[in-house]
Amino acid sequence: MSRVAEPGDIDACRLIREHSATALVERLRSGRFDKSKARDWAERIDQADAGEFLRVADQVDARFICPGDAEWPTQLHDLQALESDGGDRRGGDPFGLWVRGNADLKDTTARSISLVGARDATAYGEHVAGDLAAGCGRQACAVISGAAHGIDAAAHWGALMSTDRTIAVLACGIDRSYPVANHNLLERIATVGLVVSEAAPGCVPSRSRFLVRNRLIAALSRGTVVIEAALRSGSLNTARWARDLGRGVMGVPGPVTSMASGGVHELLRQPGSLLVTDAAEVIEHISPVGDGLAPEKAGVVSPRDQLDPRSRQLLDAVPKCSAAAAGSIAKAAGLHRDDVLVRLHRLRELGLVVADQDKWRLS
Amino acid sequence: MSRVAEPGDIDACRLIREHSATALVERLRSGRFDKSKARDWAERIDQADAGEFLRVADQVDARFICPGDAEWPTQLHDLQALESDGGDRRGGDPFGLWVRGNADLKDTTARSISLVGARDATAYGEHVAGDLAAGCGRQACAVISGAAHGIDAAAHWGALMSTDRTIAVLACGIDRSYPVANHNLLERIATVGLVVSEAAPGCVPSRSRFLVRNRLIAALSRGTVVIEAALRSGSLNTARWARDLGRGVMGVPGPVTSMASGGVHELLRQPGSLLVTDAAEVIEHISPVGDGLAPEKAGVVSPRDQLDPRSRQLLDAVPKCSAAAAGSIAKAAGLHRDDVLVRLHRLRELGLVVADQDKWRLS
Repeated sequence: MSRVAEPGDIDACRLIREHSATALVERLRSGRFDKSKARDWAERIDQADAGEFLRVADQVDARFICPGDAEWPTQLHDLQALESDGGDRRGGDPFGLWVRGNADLKDTTARSISLVGARDATAYGEHVAGDLAAGCGRQACAVISGAAHGIDAAAHWGALMSTDRTIAVLACGIDRSYPVANHNLLERIATVGLVVSEAAPGCVPSRSRFLVRNRLIAALSRGTVVIEAALRSGSLNTARWARDLGRGVMGVPGPVTSMASGGVHELLRQPGSLLVTDAAEVIEHISPVGDGLAPEKAGVVSPRDQLDPRSRQLLDAVPKCSAAAAGSIAKAAGLHRDDVLVRLHRLRELGLVVADQDKWRLS
Repeated sequence: MSRVAEPGDIDACRLIREHSATALVERLRSGRFDKSKARDWAERIDQADAGEFLRVADQVDARFICPGDAEWPTQLHDLQALESDGGDRRGGDPFGLWVRGNADLKDTTARSISLVGARDATAYGEHVAGDLAAGCGRQACAVISGAAHGIDAAAHWGALMSTDRTIAVLACGIDRSYPVANHNLLERIATVGLVVSEAAPGCVPSRSRFLVRNRLIAALSRGTVVIEAALRSGSLNTARWARDLGRGVMGVPGPVTSMASGGVHELLRQPGSLLVTDAAEVIEHISPVGDGLAPEKAGVVSPRDQLDPRSRQLLDAVPKCSAAAAGSIAKAAGLHRDDVLVRLHRLRELGLVVADQDKWRLS
């Protein structure tokens, strides 16, 4: 059925949940099937040779897993509530996945983040994607992406710098390298990480399959980060899936003068999405409340910051160069002179001012 | 009292609201005043010569306005609810303002936006500030800023490219040009727009006065936009005032690799702040609901986008180069062949595919 039905076909997803793929194929073969969808499926029923697919899969060391298998990432079942046949948001809870790699898919995705973005990324975007992915890897968080040019590839390579835990989710058969230029990347991921696809071996990628694939990228992880996306980028489709699945939706901003960040900025203007600037902020957002908190960002704290408001006001009135008498400083500060004298001595103890005979200046 | 009390002094603000400045000065002079604050005020009571200040103000064509005057921007009264003597958030509802320029302060601020940011801005930040300010000016929205180096200056100059409606709010006396390098800018603003300060003529700027000044920038306008700010920038103090006053809080993002945008990104991670990328989005945010809507940003819509999902799925399966028979296209698409034939003819009418004898390919 993985070959007979298009990836994400919701009728196939539903019927296989209710019955079984074997029963379904039997009924299709016998012609005893009255659902209108059967006419579509009939076109490829002659290709439904599971043995043949398993042989091809075996050549690339791939396996086929189904719901119920120990390795099945059960978070995918969240897709059931969103099953839809409409436009850019098509796709059901998948009935099976082809997987290459020695890692366990369920384990690896338990703590994971999806990093997606434009194919025609800028140097800035690729730099940030690599950095963010490496940072997530260092915090034992797997990085999921789509193995496309640009941001996807930069995210996978970045993750590979700090971890083995990276997962490529493809829109084509698991035996294909698409894009061809990322062949080495995919082989590397298949060796240390995981390559996953809903499409049967041999399947070519297509636009519809990319969109359907996006729902898996969103559903597998705890959150999706978009790094560079033009206004109509497919990455925004992944972000919408993440939002509707109740996963974290994040975006990395860029210059407002860069078209490549236009879609990310649109996303970040929507309620529920979060601006992130580094891996710590990503991890914080996908962690349980109070866990994995990002270190607070703070500028340098100066001794002045620790003063009370009156002392600050006084310090503002102490001259930089030529020392002044306490009386004239009091006048400049607008504070009464007895208080000023006490405070000047305290500021001297803190090393902020110096006394020059009876006059005072900044140290 | 504008000279005797520090700008923003909340005791002065409150007492003058309850009594009058004249009565207060009288009592201070007579020594019949038991509030502890009186000891601070006594330091400068000998300088409380209103006539002298008005003479200085006259030399720079400035006037002093008070609550109750027709020109008084009554939105400043919102500050009463926030009156505080604490740290970086000091300041009350001001009892008077020194104003240079022929425009009416109340009218000019009725539709206005504050643009603030780092003094040590990048070329990117200054470019965006100028652009945003000019765009706001074109939509008859006054631009308020602090006349500092960097973003402030770029915002004023940008505004002056499209409008006269720009207002500089100073932390020093209105007769001073601070920073000196912005002397020409301030003179130009005083000629066509407005220069405003709470500090008496002759006052020098100080750190406390900058912080107190920020509350006026936030309170005068409908919203504050921060364009570049390091993590501890004073601009974030202005943004906090805007938030607490119920004004719009906006930020323009930049590269996450730029320190100059670090504070803006922190701000944009807080609930209630909005990411903006151009003047239209700023105007939309400060306009009444349904008014001043920014044009929707959209990429190019292709004929493919207008197809139903099945036709898109079919189109994905039509070969680019060597034409294929409808039957093999049906198999590739996973759609039944009668439906495929009908749809192929429709796609040909749309100019998306061409028929080559009995075979089909993309046009």
